[in-house]
Amino acid sequence: MTQGPLLLSKARLEALVDGVLAIAMTILILEVKVPELADRRSAAELFHALGHALPTLLAYFFSFGMLAAFWVWHHRLAAKVERLDGWLIAISLGFLSLVSFFPFAAALLGRYPLNAGSLGVYMPAVEGILLCQVGFFAHARRRGLLDPDLPAAESLAIHRRNLKGAIFFTFWSSPSLLRLGLIWAVVPLLLGILLVVALRRSR
Amino acid sequence: MTQGPLLLSKARLEALVDGVLAIAMTILILEVKVPELADRRSAAELFHALGHALPTLLAYFFSFGMLAAFWVWHHRLAAKVERLDGWLIAISLGFLSLVSFFPFAAALLGRYPLNAGSLGVYMPAVEGILLCQVGFFAHARRRGLLDPDLPAAESLAIHRRNLKGAIFFTFWSSPSLLRLGLIWAVVPLLLGILLVVALRRSR
Amino acid sequence: MTQGPLLLSKARLEALVDGVLAIAMTILILEVKVPELADRRSAAELFHALGHALPTLLAYFFSFGMLAAFWVWHHRLAAKVERLDGWLIAISLGFLSLVSFFPFAAALLGRYPLNAGSLGVYMPAVEGILLCQVGFFAHARRRGLLDPDLPAAESLAIHRRNLKGAIFFTFWSSPSLLRLGLIWAVVPLLLGILLVVALRRSR
Amino acid sequence: MTQGPLLLSKARLEALVDGVLAIAMTILILEVKVPELADRRSAAELFHALGHALPTLLAYFFSFGMLAAFWVWHHRLAAKVERLDGWLIAISLGFLSLVSFFPFAAALLGRYPLNAGSLGVYMPAVEGILLCQVGFFAHARRRGLLDPDLPAAESLAIHRRNLKGAIFFTFWSSPSLLRLGLIWAVVPLLLGILLVVALRRSR
Repeated sequence: MTQGPLLLSKARLEALVDGVLAIAMTILILEVKVPELADRRSAAELFHALGHALPTLLAYFFSFGMLAAFWVWHHRLAAKVERLDGWLIAISLGFLSLVSFFPFAAALLGRYPLNAGSLGVYMPAVEGILLCQVGFFAHARRRGLLDPDLPAAESLAIHRRNLKGAIFFTFWSSPSLLRLGLIWAVVPLLLGILLVVALRRSR
Repeated sequence: MTQGPLLLSKARLEALVDGVLAIAMTILILEVKVPELADRRSAAELFHALGHALPTLLAYFFSFGMLAAFWVWHHRLAAKVERLDGWLIAISLGFLSLVSFFPFAAALLGRYPLNAGSLGVYMPAVEGILLCQVGFFAHARRRGLLDPDLPAAESLAIHRRNLKGAIFFTFWSSPSLLRLGLIWAVVPLLLGILLVVALRRSR
Repeated sequence: MTQGPLLLSKARLEALVDGVLAIAMTILILEVKVPELADRRSAAELFHALGHALPTLLAYFFSFGMLAAFWVWHHRLAAKVERLDGWLIAISLGFLSLVSFFPFAAALLGRYPLNAGSLGVYMPAVEGILLCQVGFFAHARRRGLLDPDLPAAESLAIHRRNLKGAIFFTFWSSPSLLRLGLIWAVVPLLLGILLVVALRRSR
Repeated sequence: MTQGPLLLSKARLEALVDGVLAIAMTILILEVKVPELADRRSAAELFHALGHALPTLLAYFFSFGMLAAFWVWHHRLAAKVERLDGWLIAISLGFLSLVSFFPFAAALLGRYPLNAGSLGVYMPAVEGILLCQVGFFAHARRRGLLDPDLPAAESLAIHRRNLKGAIFFTFWSSPSLLRLGLIWAVVPLLLGILLVVALRRSR
C-alpha cells in the first residue's frame, strides 16, 4: 500500500547475497595456480612447488572462512528484518561490492603475505564489511523495519554484539597496520573509539 | 489453460537474473590484477603499483554500482508483472546478454580510461540495457501482463520514469561520444528524440 | 512414502540448472580479451583491435543465445515433470556437464571460426545437449513422472516437437562436418535417421 | 523460541550449496585452454592439440561427475534434516571450502595425470568431502536434528550407507598413494579402520 518506489523483496536480496558470496568463495581458488613442472612426473617437484604455494593455499582457506562468517552473519541479521527500505538495499549492495572485492584483497595477501601493504588492503576491506553489517542492523532498528515479534531487548543485544565484534576487529587491526605508518594505526584507533561511544550510547 | 508453449515461470526468470547479475558483479574484480613486485616485501612498491591500478579499481566500484542499479531496477519492474509471454522472456534474455557483456566493457574502460573508444563500447552497452528495461515494462503494459491490482496511473508513471531515465542517459552520453566522430554523437541524439516522442505520446 | 534413495526435490535441480546456466552464460565473455594497445589513447587502434576480435564477439552473442534457448527449453520441459527419478537426475547432470563444457566449445569457435575442427567440437556438444533434452522428457513420459493433469495428447505433442528440433539440427549439422571427413557427416545422418524412426513410432 | 544465536534457515544453506557447486562445476572447464595453432585453419592441428588436452578433458568430465555426486548426496542428506545447529552449518561450510578447492585439485590431476603427487592432493580432498558428509548426518542423528517422521531404522541405514561409502573410498585410495611413500598409504588404512569401528558400533 504505502510501499514506495524503493520496494524490493527480501527474497531477491537474499538470493543476490547468496549468489555473490558463493562466487566470491569459489573465485578465491582461482588465485592458486597449477605450478609449472620441469619433470612432469616428479611428485617431489610437485610438492616442492605446492610448498611454495602454501601461503596462498592457507590464505585461501582463511579467506573462505572469513566469507563464510560474513554470510552466516548477514543472513542471521537479515532474518530479523521484516522489510527493506532504500538504505538497507544500498548498504547491502555496498556490502556486496566489498565482498566481490575481497578475492582481490585475499589474492594480494596470499601472494605477498610478508608485505605490510597487503594488510593495508585486506584489513580496510574487512573493516568496511563489518561496518556495513553493523549499519545494516542499526538502520533497520532505528527505522522500525525489524520483525515486530522480536523483543526490544533482543534487538538491542544483537546490535551491541555487532558493535562489539567490530570494535574488537578495529582495535586488533590497528597494530598490524602500524608498520605502514603512524596514520594507518591511528585511523582505526579513532574509529574504534567512535564505535565504543556508539556502544555506550546504545540502549 | 490458455498458456501457450512459451510459458515460463517468473520465479525461474528471476533466479536466472539474480545469478547472471551476481556473477557479472563478481567477475568485474577479475580484471584487477595482483601486481608483480620486484621487492616482495616493499609496501611502498605495492602501493605504487596499486596507484597505477587505481583507474581499474575505480572502474570496478563504478561498474559494480551500475550493475547493482540495473538489478534493483529490473526486479522492481518485474515485481509489477504478473506473467511472462515470449517477448518478455526474449527481452530479459537480451538484457542478460548485455549484462554478461558488461564486465568486458568495464574492463576496457578500466584499462584505457582516457581512450574515447572505451566509451564507444561502454556507453552503447549501458544504452542497450536501458532500452531493454524500458521495452520490458512497455511491452508488459501494452499486452496486459501487469499485476491487475496495479492502478493504470501508477503503471503510466513507472513507464514515464523509465523513459525519462533512458532519455537523460541518451542525451548525456552524446557529447562524450563526439570525440569518436560526428555520427557517434548524432545517433544518440536521434535516439533521444525518438524516446522524447514516445514520452509525449505515452498516456 | 515409496520415495526411493534417489529422491531429490525438483526445486534443488532447478536451482542447480539456473546456477550452471547463469555461470556458463557469463563465463563466455571471459574469452573476449581486452586488447593490448601500443597507443593507449588511440580510439582508432582500439576499434581496429576490436574489429579483429569481432568473430569472438559474435560467437559470444550467438553462444549466449544458444544457452538461453537451452535454459528456456529445459525449464519448459521440467515444468511438466511432477517428480524426479534417478534417470532424470542423471540425464540432467549430463546435460549440465555439456552446458559447462559449452563455453570451451564456444571459445574454440570464436578463436578459430574458419577452422572446420571448431565445428567438430561445437556441433557434437550442441547435439549432446539436444539429445539430453529429448531423453529427459521421453523418459519422464515413459515412466509416468509427468504432471498427471497434462493431457496425453499434449505430452505427445511436446515429445514430437523435441524430436523434430533434434532431427532438424542433426541433419543441418551434417554438411558442415563433411569437411572433416566422410565419417563426420555420416554419423549425424545415421543419428538423424534413428531420430526419424523414433518420431514415426511415437504415439 | 529457543532458537540460539546460530540459527540459520535450511533454505539459505541449500541455496549456498547449490551456488558453490554450480560454480565449482563450471569453473572446472576454465582449466581446459583453447590451444594456440600455427595454422589457424588446420583441423588436423586443432585435433592434434585437443588430443594432447585429452587427459584434461577426461579429468573435466570425471571431476564434474564427482561434484554432481557430492551435490546429489548432500541434498539427499540435508532433506532428512529438520533444522540446523552451529555444527551442521560449520560442517557444511567446511564441505563447501573443499568443494571450492576441488577445481584446483582437478586442474592438477588434469595437467599432471601421471604424477603421483596429483593424487596426493586429489584423494585427500575427496576424502575430506566424504568425511564432511558422514559427519553432517552423524551429528544431525546424534543431536535429534533429523526430521522426526524419519524412522530410526531408516536413519541408521542412511548413516551406515554413508560410512560404507567412505570406507570403500578410503581403502581404495590407499594403494594409489603408496607411490608417495609408506606413510601416505598407512594414514588412509588407519582412517579406514577407524571408520570400520564406527560402522560396527553404529546402532
